Amino acid sequence: MDKNLTMDKLVNLCKNRGFVFQGSEIYGGFANTWDFGPVGVELKNNIKRAWWKKFVQEDPNTYGVDAAILMNPKVWEASGHVQSFSDPQMDCKSCKYRFRADNLIEEHSKNSVSAEKMTTKEMEDYIAEHKIKCPHCGNFNWTPIRQFKLMFETSRGTVEGEKDVVYLRPETCQGEYVNFLNVQRTMRAKVPFAIAQIGKSFRNEITPGNFLFRTVEFEQMELQMFCHPEKSMEFYKNYKDRAMKFVEELGLTKENLRYHDHEKLAHYAKAACDIQYNFPIGWQELNGIHHRGIWDLSRHGDFSGKNMEYLDPYTNEKFLPNVIEYSIGADRLMLAIMSEAYEEEKLENGETRVVMHFKPFLAPFKVAILPLQKNLGEKAKEVYNLLSKKFMCDYDEAGSIGKRYRRQDEIGTPFCVTIDFDTLEDNTVTVRDRDTMAQIRLPIDELADYVQKKIEY
Amino acid sequence: MDKNLTMDKLVNLCKNRGFVFQGSEIYGGFANTWDFGPVGVELKNNIKRAWWKKFVQEDPNTYGVDAAILMNPKVWEASGHVQSFSDPQMDCKSCKYRFRADNLIEEHSKNSVSAEKMTTKEMEDYIAEHKIKCPHCGNFNWTPIRQFKLMFETSRGTVEGEKDVVYLRPETCQGEYVNFLNVQRTMRAKVPFAIAQIGKSFRNEITPGNFLFRTVEFEQMELQMFCHPEKSMEFYKNYKDRAMKFVEELGLTKENLRYHDHEKLAHYAKAACDIQYNFPIGWQELNGIHHRGIWDLSRHGDFSGKNMEYLDPYTNEKFLPNVIEYSIGADRLMLAIMSEAYEEEKLENGETRVVMHFKPFLAPFKVAILPLQKNLGEKAKEVYNLLSKKFMCDYDEAGSIGKRYRRQDEIGTPFCVTIDFDTLEDNTVTVRDRDTMAQIRLPIDELADYVQKKIEY
Repeated sequence: MDKNLTMDKLVNLCKNRGFVFQGSEIYGGFANTWDFGPVGVELKNNIKRAWWKKFVQEDPNTYGVDAAILMNPKVWEASGHVQSFSDPQMDCKSCKYRFRADNLIEEHSKNSVSAEKMTTKEMEDYIAEHKIKCPHCGNFNWTPIRQFKLMFETSRGTVEGEKDVVYLRPETCQGEYVNFLNVQRTMRAKVPFAIAQIGKSFRNEITPGNFLFRTVEFEQMELQMFCHPEKSMEFYKNYKDRAMKFVEELGLTKENLRYHDHEKLAHYAKAACDIQYNFPIGWQELNGIHHRGIWDLSRHGDFSGKNMEYLDPYTNEKFLPNVIEYSIGADRLMLAIMSEAYEEEKLENGETRVVMHFKPFLAPFKVAILPLQKNLGEKAKEVYNLLSKKFMCDYDEAGSIGKRYRRQDEIGTPFCVTIDFDTLEDNTVTVRDRDTMAQIRLPIDELADYVQKKIEY
Repeated sequence: MDKNLTMDKLVNLCKNRGFVFQGSEIYGGFANTWDFGPVGVELKNNIKRAWWKKFVQEDPNTYGVDAAILMNPKVWEASGHVQSFSDPQMDCKSCKYRFRADNLIEEHSKNSVSAEKMTTKEMEDYIAEHKIKCPHCGNFNWTPIRQFKLMFETSRGTVEGEKDVVYLRPETCQGEYVNFLNVQRTMRAKVPFAIAQIGKSFRNEITPGNFLFRTVEFEQMELQMFCHPEKSMEFYKNYKDRAMKFVEELGLTKENLRYHDHEKLAHYAKAACDIQYNFPIGWQELNGIHHRGIWDLSRHGDFSGKNMEYLDPYTNEKFLPNVIEYSIGADRLMLAIMSEAYEEEKLENGETRVVMHFKPFLAPFKVAILPLQKNLGEKAKEVYNLLSKKFMCDYDEAGSIGKRYRRQDEIGTPFCVTIDFDTLEDNTVTVRDRDTMAQIRLPIDELADYVQKKIEY
């Protein structure tokens, strides 16, 4: 990514143009939370809709669900999270700040060393040997490493003395596993089939966030494909392809995308890979495709006492389906899409305009309605009322038309419709294209069709 | 509501047809949580989209946001929740079950007594005087009333020894108040304007749930209209009208809807009303419209030290805007819509069919594609691929055509498209209407337009 885009620049654009604000900003913020503003909420919703359309709506073998965030705590025992979902943490005894030991090592070594496979002892030794200092206060005064639980805990009390511990889900996919039987039964689904979900997850991360890249609360778009063990590698490859095709269709370019096959696998996994994107902070995981074997269904079968096996009605074979998981973060994908869309374009007159080249179907607003002068507002509102029945539109009557165009460029509105005095005479308007800045004249009653054709996905 | 519909019947239909499952069902459930299945998630999403379209997309003075669920804890001090958001709770000393004292009184009196205005002492006296027994074990052996906090608490620890208490938001609207300045600035919004949001909230309720009516985790659709004090009553009335119009457009009928003006107001409120719906459990609150005065912005101004005043650019008047809040629960509205849509229709042959008469734009699936025989599957898949690019479609090839029609009736699919042998010859299909059961013959290439016209909102 070599287009002059830093994360700071993107954060500022987001803050000033209504994409993303710091969470609880008037109270000094709240670490690693973000609020989506009027522009950002539309972009994020469009991303979620595109994913749902591609992976649920257009796929007759995929069923959507929306499971509760708060689940029976036994779910997290079965999944293994209660026992082992934690980060290696060290506290600086001087300034009391807390850090992840693996991050300290990787940052200190400028990513030339991977701490992923190190034991606690090895990490402590490395930090001692290299005298890695506290990034906050500069002292070398660490506690030993302890494991820090990543699940947020809360409690639900209905009976005195029995305040049950409840967790905020750290991943959405358990909602699919526990509903495997329900979906199979009610939809009369035949294996292979997938269950898909979009929803929030929470992780008590102590790592630096890098804006939307890593947040304590984030939205996952993911599906779990249940299939016969013998077909499982085929589906694994198939979702690798589909996942890549999807992000390309959303505008991410091939040169900023790559596969990253995992060398180190979870003990139950048969294969795993990421798709990485070249973010302003470098190559990082964008999404994951994991072959999870029978781990999930067998664990839930054991812990719940339910039989999770599938009886194939054609072959009469009874088996525990394998699971292929495909998961992508909506926030992280939004960050990638904004990074990719960003351009500082040098104009012929020497000026620079910032343009967000979103694919039209992803653009927060499809059309901006701009009366050339304030006394054209009545006609402009008519056009707004007509188009806003079909699309998200912006309406802006303040400031010079040039400045209003620039503002729409920065939020990536593909079409600006200008209402002028001719409009009052002949019911035609000027339509300006965001990318080419070319203008055409169109009758008002052809506008909706014109835009509709351009925003299809 | 006198159409033979009980809550149990609705819960069963939901469970068997993929609308709603008990949360974490394979683990015996998790009290008052529900998972939306493949059919329910579509209905709920359609409800949310309809609300967003009506109140955000089509309104040039309303701006959407999507704020984080985890907020700076000071937000909940400013809002008053830390101090006073609680329920009067009593424990049965015999069986250890916990109940809300106000609920015990209201249920015992069959709603002839309102406990809303009673003090703790008055409630204790009433329960003693009427010897109200534990609904769980039948004993009369109560603890005194204590106030039970309704906010779920969790903690976020980044610095040793300073584990901050964090709350799961019990309402979404604080996300709008804390972003009032951000939205105003970035969208150059002029008062009056509204900020709207759809998102999850959490309440540690101890009350019985009545299915989707009251759940510990629920999704709110709400907006906060910021306006000049002198215009505030006008907006209050305006949103009363718009709120009613909205639920009528979604199919709720006038005879099942009524306004309920509040007699008892919060100390800061100037007016408040609900719209009530005649649920299978009787008349209950469906949504609320509240005139909150300057309470919210003044409190956040005080607690954050930020100036929340608005300077009117036309009049140069500086003032703290009043807030009109309009809020409706997506889950509760879904329950109302399902209740309203339900019909047990006596057919001429003496049989009964259950039909969900959803408005077509709300129906989970718009079209079901049903090959008359299995060897017509290839052609049927072609039709599915064509239509699923535009609409959520169901595909079903198993069982008799009559049974498949019934199943689609029960999930409210407005159109069933049957592929038969004539289809192979002339590319026409049979389209069956859910409500009238009338059938017409249409060319495949006219299908999408036919359906599109019927599902517009």
